[in-house]
Amino acid sequence: MRATVGWGAAGAAAGLRRVHLERRDLRPDDVAVRVDYCGVCHTDLQAVQDRSGDGGTVLVPGHEFTGVVTSVGRDVTRFRVGDQVAVGNIVDSCDTCVMCRAGQENFCREFPTLTYGGTDRHDGSITAGAYSREYVVRDRFAYLLPANLDPAAAAPLLCAGITVWEPLHALGVGPHSRVAVAGLGGLGHLAVKLSVALGAETSVISRSADKADDARRLGAHDLIVSTDPEQMADARDRFDVIIDTVSVPHDPGPYLRLVAMDGTLSQVGHLGPITVQTLDLLIGRKKLSSAGSGGRAATVALLEFCAEHGVTADIELLPSARVDEALDRLRRNDVRYRFVLDMSDLK
Amino acid sequence: MRATVGWGAAGAAAGLRRVHLERRDLRPDDVAVRVDYCGVCHTDLQAVQDRSGDGGTVLVPGHEFTGVVTSVGRDVTRFRVGDQVAVGNIVDSCDTCVMCRAGQENFCREFPTLTYGGTDRHDGSITAGAYSREYVVRDRFAYLLPANLDPAAAAPLLCAGITVWEPLHALGVGPHSRVAVAGLGGLGHLAVKLSVALGAETSVISRSADKADDARRLGAHDLIVSTDPEQMADARDRFDVIIDTVSVPHDPGPYLRLVAMDGTLSQVGHLGPITVQTLDLLIGRKKLSSAGSGGRAATVALLEFCAEHGVTADIELLPSARVDEALDRLRRNDVRYRFVLDMSDLK
Repeated sequence: MRATVGWGAAGAAAGLRRVHLERRDLRPDDVAVRVDYCGVCHTDLQAVQDRSGDGGTVLVPGHEFTGVVTSVGRDVTRFRVGDQVAVGNIVDSCDTCVMCRAGQENFCREFPTLTYGGTDRHDGSITAGAYSREYVVRDRFAYLLPANLDPAAAAPLLCAGITVWEPLHALGVGPHSRVAVAGLGGLGHLAVKLSVALGAETSVISRSADKADDARRLGAHDLIVSTDPEQMADARDRFDVIIDTVSVPHDPGPYLRLVAMDGTLSQVGHLGPITVQTLDLLIGRKKLSSAGSGGRAATVALLEFCAEHGVTADIELLPSARVDEALDRLRRNDVRYRFVLDMSDLK
Repeated sequence: MRATVGWGAAGAAAGLRRVHLERRDLRPDDVAVRVDYCGVCHTDLQAVQDRSGDGGTVLVPGHEFTGVVTSVGRDVTRFRVGDQVAVGNIVDSCDTCVMCRAGQENFCREFPTLTYGGTDRHDGSITAGAYSREYVVRDRFAYLLPANLDPAAAAPLLCAGITVWEPLHALGVGPHSRVAVAGLGGLGHLAVKLSVALGAETSVISRSADKADDARRLGAHDLIVSTDPEQMADARDRFDVIIDTVSVPHDPGPYLRLVAMDGTLSQVGHLGPITVQTLDLLIGRKKLSSAGSGGRAATVALLEFCAEHGVTADIELLPSARVDEALDRLRRNDVRYRFVLDMSDLK
C-alpha cells in the first residue's frame, strides 16, 4: 500500500482533520497522481454534514482535481510520469453496459464508482477522495490536462464544469440559442462562461442585482432579478434553455415560465425530488430535465473546448489547511465562484 | 338569441338533465353548427363531479364534436351551410399574442376561450358545451371535416386526438422512433393509432395483459404489463418517447426508467402536480413534458393526417339521453375506447 495524507471528517468532531491514508498498490491499469489542486464542491459540504455523528469511518471528500502522474501501472500506455492530468467524480464503471458502451459512464447501469464514498469494483474498499496528496485511479478515468489551462482554475471543470456542459451540449446550445443560467455560483458561473463560449446569448437569473457586474464580466448579456415580478414578466417565454443551478429545493415554475415554447429547464443544482405543476409544462410544451457529471467522451470534449476558448473557473485558491474555512464560506455562498485547495501544504 | 336544448348539470341533483339553452345571435364571423356527435371526455366527468352541490348555474359539458353548418355570419367565407365541421375544446383566443401568432392558440397568453365553462371575450357570458343540439362558434375555431372520416368516430379527434398528436409531432416521432403509450383509454388508443400511422414502433404499457389483443389490433408491437417487474426491467431505456395517458396521480419514475437516453416522457392524462425524483431524470438525461389541446395549425394537420391514414377513434355510440350511463361507465374505465353521444335524439 502507498501511504499519503489528507483531510478527513470523522465522528462528531467539528471540521476536517489531517489524516493518514493508504492508497492501493498500482494495478496494471492504474496511475498514481500527486494531487496539486482540488475544487470544493457542494457535494463535499453535504457529505461532511451528513457524516457528523456517525462515529466510525473517516470521510475524505474531493472529486474535481488536477495533478501530476508520479507512477503508472504496467499496462498503462496513455500516460507517462510527469503528465498533468485531471480527474472528476467517477473513477470506474462496468465498461460493458449499454451506457458505458455509449460513452456515458456516468449513467453506468451498475452505477459508476464514485471518487469518494464509492465502493471499489475489485477489492470492495471504500474510496477516499482528493482532499489528499495522492490519488490512485484507473487510467481510463484520468484525463490529460491541456497545457494552456491553469491547473488550479481547471480543477472545477471536472465536476462543476462537466455537469453544466452535458446539458448545454445535449440540448444543442449554439450561436442561435437563448440561454439563461439561474444561480451564479460554482456551477452557474461556469455555465455562463461555457454558454457564452458556445455563442449563445446568455442571461443570468439571480435573486438580487448584486452580481450584475460579475454576470457581464463573465460574458452575460444581462441579469434578471428573480424577485422582481416585472423583470420576470418581461422575460416570459424568452429562453430556449435554462440551466438551473440553485442548490436548495425550489419551485421550478417561475423559471419554466421563462422557457420558450418547446424549450427545456435543466435542473442541475438540487438533486432532491422536484414538484412541478403540469400546467407549467403544458403551456408552451416545455420540458424539465436534469444532468450531473459526465461520461469520458464528454469530459475529453469539454477539456478540448475549454483549452480552445480559454475557459476555466473563477477561483479562490486556499492552502488545503484552510479547508474548514472554505466549507464554511461555501455554506454561506460566500465565494466567487469556486474554492480550490492547494495541496502543496500537505506533507 | 337562438333557442336549443342540451344536457346540463346543476346543483346537487344526480345526473344530467335536459335543459333549454340560448345560443347567441350570429356575429359576422360566427357559424351555427347542428351538433350531431359529441365525444365524452374525462374533463367532462371531472367538471360534472366538481359541479355537484354548487347550487346555481347549469353546466353543459362537451368539447369534441362534429356536425353540420346551418347558418353563417355575414363575413364568413370559409364555410357554407351544409359543410361538415368539427370543433374542439377552444373556441376563441386573443389573436395577437406571440403564441396566437405562432399558431398555438391553445397557449394564448390571455388564455383561450374554452368551449364550455369559458368566458366569451365579447359579451362576458359563460360558454355552454356541445352536449346540445346547436353550437355557435367563431369560424376560425371550426374545422372542415374531411369527407372520408366518419363524423361520429372523428369527434374524439378534436380533444383526445389533438392532445396526443401535439407531443408526438413536437417530439419528432416518425419511422425510426420507439414509442410507448401508457394507459389504453380514450387518449391512449388514439396515441397508439397515430404513433403507428407515423411509422413508429409502438408499445402499450398497461396494468394488466387484458388489453394485449386490443393493443395488437390497434397496431402496437407489444404490451408491457407495468405490474410485472421483469417486463418493466426488460424494457428499461427502450423508448424515445412515452406518452403517459394515465388519468390518476402517479409516480412518473417507473415510466421514466423505460425512456431511452435523451428521450421524453410526456404526461398528458393527469393535469395535477407531478413529483419527480431528480435522479429519474438525471440518469440518462431524460425529459418530462406535458401537452394538452392544440393550436389551429396542428388541428388542421391532424385532420389531414387522419383522413390520409384512416385514423378515427374506436367508439361506443350512445343516444345522448344515455349520457349519465356514459359518464358512469367512463368513471369506471368501462369503455373501449371513447363514448360518443348521438345528439339526434335531442329535440
